[in-house]
Amino acid sequence: MRENALQKLRAKFEKYGLDSILISNLDNVRYLSDFTGGEGSLLITQGENYFLTDSRYVTQASEQTTGFIVRKYEKRESEISDLASRLNIKNLGFEPLYVTFKVYRKLLEKLEGIAFTPIDEGLDSLRGVKEDTEVELIREAIRIASESFVKLVGEIEIGMQERDIALEMEYLMRKMGAEKVSFDTIVASGKRAALPHGIATSKKIEEGDLILIDYGARYQGYYSDETQTVVVGKPSARQEEIYEVVKEAQEKAFEAIRPGIDVTEVDAAARDHIKKAGFEEYFGHGTGHGVGLAVHESPRISPLGEGVLEEGMVFTVEPGIYIPEWGGIRLEDMVRVTSHGYEKLTILPKKLQVI
Amino acid sequence: MRENALQKLRAKFEKYGLDSILISNLDNVRYLSDFTGGEGSLLITQGENYFLTDSRYVTQASEQTTGFIVRKYEKRESEISDLASRLNIKNLGFEPLYVTFKVYRKLLEKLEGIAFTPIDEGLDSLRGVKEDTEVELIREAIRIASESFVKLVGEIEIGMQERDIALEMEYLMRKMGAEKVSFDTIVASGKRAALPHGIATSKKIEEGDLILIDYGARYQGYYSDETQTVVVGKPSARQEEIYEVVKEAQEKAFEAIRPGIDVTEVDAAARDHIKKAGFEEYFGHGTGHGVGLAVHESPRISPLGEGVLEEGMVFTVEPGIYIPEWGGIRLEDMVRVTSHGYEKLTILPKKLQVI
Repeated sequence: MRENALQKLRAKFEKYGLDSILISNLDNVRYLSDFTGGEGSLLITQGENYFLTDSRYVTQASEQTTGFIVRKYEKRESEISDLASRLNIKNLGFEPLYVTFKVYRKLLEKLEGIAFTPIDEGLDSLRGVKEDTEVELIREAIRIASESFVKLVGEIEIGMQERDIALEMEYLMRKMGAEKVSFDTIVASGKRAALPHGIATSKKIEEGDLILIDYGARYQGYYSDETQTVVVGKPSARQEEIYEVVKEAQEKAFEAIRPGIDVTEVDAAARDHIKKAGFEEYFGHGTGHGVGLAVHESPRISPLGEGVLEEGMVFTVEPGIYIPEWGGIRLEDMVRVTSHGYEKLTILPKKLQVI
Repeated sequence: MRENALQKLRAKFEKYGLDSILISNLDNVRYLSDFTGGEGSLLITQGENYFLTDSRYVTQASEQTTGFIVRKYEKRESEISDLASRLNIKNLGFEPLYVTFKVYRKLLEKLEGIAFTPIDEGLDSLRGVKEDTEVELIREAIRIASESFVKLVGEIEIGMQERDIALEMEYLMRKMGAEKVSFDTIVASGKRAALPHGIATSKKIEEGDLILIDYGARYQGYYSDETQTVVVGKPSARQEEIYEVVKEAQEKAFEAIRPGIDVTEVDAAARDHIKKAGFEEYFGHGTGHGVGLAVHESPRISPLGEGVLEEGMVFTVEPGIYIPEWGGIRLEDMVRVTSHGYEKLTILPKKLQVI
């Protein structure tokens, strides 16, 4: 049970006129209750915490959670409405991003006379500030991914297919203890590196290629996310120049990080540098995103992001320049906001590595 | 463009009073349009087919789809409402299972004066009957998984961890051409085989263990799904007995398969056999599920399933017996419904293999 987060959750009750909240998103369920299984919902009232799940997960829920009353259901929606009625609930909040219209309608029908209210501020942002124990798990995920990457780079050769490099990277991470990989590993080489999220293909590595490799490992539920761009053989002047611009843009973003700064300012720090260098049109995505129990979570470091940084937030800083028919370079690190600035969590240096 | 499926979709218009349908589920989008990317929606009107996507996928959509007018959006909901208004749409259908409450509310706000109607019969069932070209891709996925399994079995040794066996299986499938694995490979040994969906752990393989291995490969979008249970060393009489019961139950289900039979009857054929043998309480899941562009899709072969089999449907037949503190056995094959019966698509025999 994460008492402080449950308190923050209950603080929403007054604002929305609620007496209870239903939590459906499994990452939020895990965060609040420590349950790691595949099916479960929380019903949080003013005074009590209920954990609802099906027969497959009742034992696991009882073992993993503390401070929750575990209840088994045959049909989730019936159990929620029965419980709401028994607890005399009048206004139940829910996460609009994680409830399908189908489930919404079913609950609305069953919850006769009970208001069912979407909570519009993302409850996911509760997870934005990481505790030290969470940061330690992220560090372990990073360690696994970093050691795997160092080994991988030693194995890349001209003629290898992108997809074999991706497969090898994923194999290494899992062999070294990742419980899974964060996402399908991106390996985009040559002109294909201009695709910011290029799926690894059968394209073979050639002399002179830039290879953009975006990878991550999961450890005890927590993800890492990092991107390196390497070059095959002696880099061209243009490759070196653009690498330097991206690296400087990343530095500018790092320097902007401190508690209280608006997330758009961190994004702007990287973006303005790329703009000054004349590559504005080639940086089409946000500068970063939170990482924790999900690979992409709050905060969102982008021109469209909202809110300010807080001490303890963990997120990526990943500017890139992608030029069609030429290639692309992205550098991605993970950082943690400290009391006056930032700490880099990823450990591999970002300098144009020749392989 | 899959003309016959689009016709079936338009046949729903009259029933629901629609003049158009919005398709959000990416498997349905792929099925109807051949688009394989990560972001796209279809808007199907009486006379025209629109493909809506963002800047990342416009080129891919134009290349992969035929018979669709491809439109790029900045904001999906705005594009849908603009288009609906321009086309003078009065009643737009949608998939309630794949639209979150958040998106539903946004669209409802924007679609002023336009009815927005959930289509309650699962549109996914459009995909239930497979064409020959689809079956060929499924066969290739099965071939990859089968060859990998045969190789894997040769490598399993006492003392290996379940998770290393799972990792090896996944590595083999991808090395042999799987674009991804169907799901996290299940390797549950000894008493752990009593967990029908046991995640592979660090438990080591021991003499006398049953090992339940559930695995699959994806090839060009199509999945395979198969389960084998093997034994380490000489099987006990009880292991042999229960294996035989499961195998006979599977045979009973096979024999029931033909066009027109209710899906619950196929389930009952397997379930009744297990019941007669005295193991009813140890078979807690459905007998099978459709497989195609999703690992789990229509039809649902279970006591709660609905509808009858049709020629060309492809699904799993996977009875199991799971006895707490003893272990478990599941045998899973994939079949295709033929004009008078069934054809087995999986190729590996099911007999208690000793390793």
